Amino acid sequence: MRLRHKPWAKEYMEAQEHVFIQHPEQLKGKWGTEFGNDDPLFIEVGSGKGQFVLGMAKQHPNVNFIAIELFESVAVSIVQKLVETPMSNVRVLTVDAKRLVDYFEAGEVDRVYLNFSDPWPKSRHAKRRLTYKTFLATYEAILPKAGEIHFKTDNRGLFEYSLQSMSQYGMFFTEISLDLHVNEPEDNIRTEYEERFSALGQPIYRMEAVFRPKN
Amino acid sequence: MRLRHKPWAKEYMEAQEHVFIQHPEQLKGKWGTEFGNDDPLFIEVGSGKGQFVLGMAKQHPNVNFIAIELFESVAVSIVQKLVETPMSNVRVLTVDAKRLVDYFEAGEVDRVYLNFSDPWPKSRHAKRRLTYKTFLATYEAILPKAGEIHFKTDNRGLFEYSLQSMSQYGMFFTEISLDLHVNEPEDNIRTEYEERFSALGQPIYRMEAVFRPKN
Repeated sequence: MRLRHKPWAKEYMEAQEHVFIQHPEQLKGKWGTEFGNDDPLFIEVGSGKGQFVLGMAKQHPNVNFIAIELFESVAVSIVQKLVETPMSNVRVLTVDAKRLVDYFEAGEVDRVYLNFSDPWPKSRHAKRRLTYKTFLATYEAILPKAGEIHFKTDNRGLFEYSLQSMSQYGMFFTEISLDLHVNEPEDNIRTEYEERFSALGQPIYRMEAVFRPKN
Repeated sequence: MRLRHKPWAKEYMEAQEHVFIQHPEQLKGKWGTEFGNDDPLFIEVGSGKGQFVLGMAKQHPNVNFIAIELFESVAVSIVQKLVETPMSNVRVLTVDAKRLVDYFEAGEVDRVYLNFSDPWPKSRHAKRRLTYKTFLATYEAILPKAGEIHFKTDNRGLFEYSLQSMSQYGMFFTEISLDLHVNEPEDNIRTEYEERFSALGQPIYRMEAVFRPKN
């Protein structure tokens, strides 16, 4: 994603404290209190400008969503949309996915979404891919037993890598589509990237992967 | 595959007893004796007319190959090719994959190849797919620990299904390509189907899957 410098982003977001969570470590284990209910909590890691997470939040008003986007200059777009169209079941964080265990208790997150993550195509950057084993261990730590990751991408190399990495970690797959838009599910929420790459005729890959319960 | 009735096939094959094994149950546990060496044994389930298995046997003279093709009218093509160009490291069987344990001891087969298997696209026929769990159990029974299945297909639905079925069975993937011919490995042996579907611009899918060793 091309990053535009937005020096005003940080200050703008910090003013929207009902949407942007500046100190998520203080809410670890208390997200139900923050949202004011016991609804399931789904997080998206790498939300970009938020089209997916906001579409999901509208489609599922009884689920709480947290959009995680490292870059403030990008995350600010999600906050702006939420200022225009308030939704009580969405919060935005600008934190590093490596540190998710600092913000969520074990089992506090009910599902993890990854969409069009940076492919980091060079082998020497494999550790940065959001489906590398250390990231999988982080997701597993905050999900319940048999927790799920839902993942979409247009990037063939990243999808090939992820099927290997996740199966080697011990996950199994309950849904796989190697060309999602051929029979696009009615409830599919497209991301910004998904619309762009599908328009170019590229297949969109999707999976639902489950952590194998340990004994 | 379109089947032509070839009433002469059975008699023709039975006359080639150095190639066509009429009673493979008698060789269970004794394939090394049949081949006259201790080389690794790779089997292909569903060999069609044999382009893949014969190409592999030529490329790997120190591996023994068994081509398994249920239909005599198809398998006869492999036998005919072996009569024209004899190869000491290939045998042909016309047996049902369901019964592999009747022909091979535990651990006697070193690798299983599946290529362009019948997709059986209807859900009610899922049990007939060669990557259905009962077939996986059969392959596992004749392979060593951490045994491998190498699988290619042009059929998206079958590949999607197989990734799920194999991962749910407890297998993991060490190689996956969702468009094999984009960077076709130099040593890739194309099957008859592979050439036909690739010429039509369809992606060829390939995986190497490993059985997770049990404790």
